[in-house]
Amino acid sequence: MEPLYDNPTFFDKYSQMYRSQHGLAGAGEWPSLQPLLPDFTGKRVLDLGCGYGWHCSYAAQQGAAYVLGIDNSQRMLEVAKAKNNAPEIQYRRASIDQLSLPEESFDVVFSSLAIHYLPDYPGLVEQVKSWLVPGGDFVFSVEHPIFTAQGPQDWVYGPKGEILHFPVDNYFYEGEREAVFLGEKMVKYHRTLTTYLDTLLQKGFSLKRVVEPQPPQSMMNLPGMQDEMRRPMMLLVAAEKR
Amino acid sequence: MEPLYDNPTFFDKYSQMYRSQHGLAGAGEWPSLQPLLPDFTGKRVLDLGCGYGWHCSYAAQQGAAYVLGIDNSQRMLEVAKAKNNAPEIQYRRASIDQLSLPEESFDVVFSSLAIHYLPDYPGLVEQVKSWLVPGGDFVFSVEHPIFTAQGPQDWVYGPKGEILHFPVDNYFYEGEREAVFLGEKMVKYHRTLTTYLDTLLQKGFSLKRVVEPQPPQSMMNLPGMQDEMRRPMMLLVAAEKR
Repeated sequence: MEPLYDNPTFFDKYSQMYRSQHGLAGAGEWPSLQPLLPDFTGKRVLDLGCGYGWHCSYAAQQGAAYVLGIDNSQRMLEVAKAKNNAPEIQYRRASIDQLSLPEESFDVVFSSLAIHYLPDYPGLVEQVKSWLVPGGDFVFSVEHPIFTAQGPQDWVYGPKGEILHFPVDNYFYEGEREAVFLGEKMVKYHRTLTTYLDTLLQKGFSLKRVVEPQPPQSMMNLPGMQDEMRRPMMLLVAAEKR
Repeated sequence: MEPLYDNPTFFDKYSQMYRSQHGLAGAGEWPSLQPLLPDFTGKRVLDLGCGYGWHCSYAAQQGAAYVLGIDNSQRMLEVAKAKNNAPEIQYRRASIDQLSLPEESFDVVFSSLAIHYLPDYPGLVEQVKSWLVPGGDFVFSVEHPIFTAQGPQDWVYGPKGEILHFPVDNYFYEGEREAVFLGEKMVKYHRTLTTYLDTLLQKGFSLKRVVEPQPPQSMMNLPGMQDEMRRPMMLLVAAEKR
């Protein structure tokens, strides 16, 4: 099946998003995510679901020796190669869950908002563990379990169109959810916080940081941003292979 | 102010709850909590908000050398002394946030569903750290941040009284919430998952387990229990002082 991010209509809308236009500075979670990243100097870095390559570029700028950006969308990778090119960065088209890489070949594995598209999280944790050297860092962001639980990912509105609250449902029933993003249906996988964190703890990782990013003050004037104080939308995790 | 648990009306209702009548076996989270507890053999154990003393009794039965149960309700402690007495157990009436104990005098600090009544969580973490020996265990259950966020802690119902979903609101606004429990108003403190977990990580604890308990199969026939698959109600944390 064609990756959704290769669908021209969806891709056009995605490329008009604030965060697509402004890179890391346009991502509300970046001020919370940046302090969770390790020192990249001399490191071999793997970016799972690299998209436009903003984080690959950042790692290279911060001194990474080698950065491998993986994405399953050809269109994404074309933009990445145009916008975020550097001698240290290599982009490769692949599905994360079919990716084969040598054992202990990376010092840092990073992933931004991609893991909730993968059906097998424990399998991913095993993969990442095998790719990392002991003491290596695994830092990722995902949509928050509260945000993915019910499915549609929309507020409940009152009679005048005002936001009443955010609905949570079917929390302990993990699996596929059909959400609408930029007008297109897409499948995401809901899993509990227990699954995200306890799986890491039980499979040989230590947790270093667990952060739910709040909207930064500097972006509070963007449409809808103030409302993001009312629900947790993302979860940031920094872990270390023991 | 008189502790709510010393209010006779409230206390009567509390004592009729399934979990009050059946002890640990009547607590839905017990099958998830038990595996998070350390080996108690020869340990000095502090139970913050011990209530009826079920967990104090369990620790003593599991070989703890000394168990100190703390609660601010005289009525609770009277029941604890009657129901869960043992030579190793001492009960003391005190408010947790005014408790003074010698440094490094406990091997295990435990707390069941009490910490969300305390206004100062970072302060508590500092206290617990000072009371624990290095390598000591801090295991606790609290109401889940999703359960405490909005305040009233009730489902949203449809026109026929059927449950539609659970409402989340004001998630990043931490602080007091007025909830109704057994018909009585009570103040609880909402804090985010970030605050619960990241505070531990940043103040010298390692996380060992993070678990959101699901209702056990054996209790699915109790009223409302099936619905607890739809929202996370509790958070269990096992941490270790580094």
